Amino acid sequence: MYDGLKGFRDFYPGEQSARREVTDAIEGAASRHGFREIATPALERTEMYVDKSGEEIVEELYAFDDKGGRGVSMTPELTPTVARMVVAKGQELSKPIKWMSTRPFWRYEQVQQGRFREFYQTNIDVFGSSAPEADAEVLAVAADALTDLGLTGDDFEFRVSHRDILGGLVRSLAADPDAVDTAAAIRAVDKRAKVDDAEYVGLLSDAGLARDTARDFDDLISDVETVADLDAVAEAGDESVEAAVENLRNVLAAADDFGAGEFCEVSLTTARGLDYYTGVVFECFDSTGEVSRSVFGGGRYDDLIESFGGQPTPAVGVAPGHATLKLLCQRAGVWPDEELSTDYYVLSVGDTRSEAAALASDLRALGDDVVVEQDISGRSFGAQLGYADSINAETVVVVGERDLENGEYTVKDMESGDETTVPVEEFPPEDGLPTYEDYV
Amino acid sequence: MYDGLKGFRDFYPGEQSARREVTDAIEGAASRHGFREIATPALERTEMYVDKSGEEIVEELYAFDDKGGRGVSMTPELTPTVARMVVAKGQELSKPIKWMSTRPFWRYEQVQQGRFREFYQTNIDVFGSSAPEADAEVLAVAADALTDLGLTGDDFEFRVSHRDILGGLVRSLAADPDAVDTAAAIRAVDKRAKVDDAEYVGLLSDAGLARDTARDFDDLISDVETVADLDAVAEAGDESVEAAVENLRNVLAAADDFGAGEFCEVSLTTARGLDYYTGVVFECFDSTGEVSRSVFGGGRYDDLIESFGGQPTPAVGVAPGHATLKLLCQRAGVWPDEELSTDYYVLSVGDTRSEAAALASDLRALGDDVVVEQDISGRSFGAQLGYADSINAETVVVVGERDLENGEYTVKDMESGDETTVPVEEFPPEDGLPTYEDYV
Repeated sequence: MYDGLKGFRDFYPGEQSARREVTDAIEGAASRHGFREIATPALERTEMYVDKSGEEIVEELYAFDDKGGRGVSMTPELTPTVARMVVAKGQELSKPIKWMSTRPFWRYEQVQQGRFREFYQTNIDVFGSSAPEADAEVLAVAADALTDLGLTGDDFEFRVSHRDILGGLVRSLAADPDAVDTAAAIRAVDKRAKVDDAEYVGLLSDAGLARDTARDFDDLISDVETVADLDAVAEAGDESVEAAVENLRNVLAAADDFGAGEFCEVSLTTARGLDYYTGVVFECFDSTGEVSRSVFGGGRYDDLIESFGGQPTPAVGVAPGHATLKLLCQRAGVWPDEELSTDYYVLSVGDTRSEAAALASDLRALGDDVVVEQDISGRSFGAQLGYADSINAETVVVVGERDLENGEYTVKDMESGDETTVPVEEFPPEDGLPTYEDYV
Repeated sequence: MYDGLKGFRDFYPGEQSARREVTDAIEGAASRHGFREIATPALERTEMYVDKSGEEIVEELYAFDDKGGRGVSMTPELTPTVARMVVAKGQELSKPIKWMSTRPFWRYEQVQQGRFREFYQTNIDVFGSSAPEADAEVLAVAADALTDLGLTGDDFEFRVSHRDILGGLVRSLAADPDAVDTAAAIRAVDKRAKVDDAEYVGLLSDAGLARDTARDFDDLISDVETVADLDAVAEAGDESVEAAVENLRNVLAAADDFGAGEFCEVSLTTARGLDYYTGVVFECFDSTGEVSRSVFGGGRYDDLIESFGGQPTPAVGVAPGHATLKLLCQRAGVWPDEELSTDYYVLSVGDTRSEAAALASDLRALGDDVVVEQDISGRSFGAQLGYADSINAETVVVVGERDLENGEYTVKDMESGDETTVPVEEFPPEDGLPTYEDYV
């Protein structure tokens, strides 16, 4: 007997049917907005990740040399791969490019609740538009996906921030702007809720802010709770801060028009950890706080395509992670039932296999989603009925020798156990999915 | 600029939409027969493959040591993983277990037409039934999938064979049955069409058949073209051959009842290469021979679960590979169009973003599959129309300031260029997907 690997999961049909429903909801929302599915490799050259994130990234990669001596890694995220794909096709692709895909990624890290070594995400990205409507569309798709799952504005919120407000403000406040490590300051803000106050101020200080100034900076960003509060921030910063505030306002106004405004809050203490983000960034949180971590996040990464050797191409995206989303859905009571569903079990008794199989085939033809099972184990009446129950069959159609002599099937409702006979020529009808109720 | 890895493919939206259609057809056929989706890890312990296939398998695996020192491999096939999953849950799972899933697998091998290092398969398996109806259901699902794709009996055939007929016949004919390497003899049959006659006879001879006997054996199996021809084989063999002939007949009779019989041919020169097959095996071929390789195959593997430490559990499955299936679909002219489709582009002119976005949202609510795009790049009328054309929008709805003052939208058919105005309150209607034709 073999074990699976730690941090890797087997999904059996019950759980998988719930996961499929959630994936379909997310992909459906993106698809209705015109995001097109792509498919991408599981392996890339390790150097692509090292160039982008530094040698230390290798520590958390499934990295190895292939049989041809190439340094390769199992993809830890999608963004570098899609950046490579955008660069490869360059001008051939009409803009904006709107792509989505769902697949696993891999990171060698500590396994904990909602975090695995193999984890699934749906990536949703726009390339080629710097307009606030692009950011808003990404927020709208995320909001549509969550509301399609049954979540409401009482369940989740998008905390929206802007990296250039944070970076510009740090440089505006610093005694020596040239000595500021903007990226380090933003990483400090990202860690704000995860470390204690002294460590946080220390991180800001390491990034080039005097301790008093760090305190002022934190007061400024943490005081912002509404769009109106952004005035004070714009006044305290330089022109870059003013422009970023204007951009954030425009994104939020577009999000209002696109139907996502009600889920958005301004939150400058939100920063996102990854260095490649450039403009608006956001994170989705459980409004009740019961799921304490960010459920997922997204934002702008306008410089990445150029750094990959492509034409300057603005970009914005979001990547719902399925494991944390499951925690939110479970907390809100909207995680789908983890069970099988079956429309019909066609039960053959006696020498009726041919007739039963033909009926099963006719029932399957009633719809793309209809599920019809029949005996493939040579079982007795009772054993077949037990199996039909185990797969939650809604209706059992008994095809017995005597029934057939009378030109009838027996249609049985598995919830109540009630049954009736139906003339063979009336079953199934030309359209609709017939149940016991239709014949009494 | 980075390159992808050789043998790994990027799928852009046009090609991916065709692949999605094909995957949905295969999964849909399996789902309608009650096969339930599972999801499985990309990495397993390397020893699982070595134990099953010997040390030489490592040569074609993406095998490496993870950061915890475990010998791991990117999964080259699904069967060992599902066997592990069946063993892990044991008696908990009600039988028959019917599972399916679509995902990539990885093998380090020579890249050629229809063969890649990362390749996609849909695996469809039944565990827990040794009845001929289980084999027949697997054949029926494969046939339904192919006919749903638009293929017909003129396009493909299932060449059905039986390992116990081949193995039993070899032992019955051999001067010393105990000296026969049955698995090697079956591997020789599998290579029959790929090597020259001398090499083929040499392989049978290595397996323990004298050269003359090898010739007799080959005459016997190659003479079989119909079910009736199996009589001669049953007579030439021992009781195990007789039983296997009986089983093959029963499977073909069940396949007739299940609607797959018309696609099946008896072909004892079909053997399948993998050692774990035990009973009925089959391969799907292009009937015209233009695609010269087997498109995909399947069969029984009744001993695998027990060899993985589980209770004896008969099993039968099929795994359509998407790359070779594409070759067959292209040859038959039924590969789906590789292009985008879009139902509506809502074109906003002037200060109408809010109204246009609300209309786009209403249109999206008309159906799960409806695709609606709008401007997210701040573009002019002409540039928006060009983009709408590039995404193959069927209908453009123009939301202009003047139109709105008149309480109207302009509805434009993108095929003909014809347009008309429609009162705002009549668009969209309560059901159906409105087009230009509905308003003239």
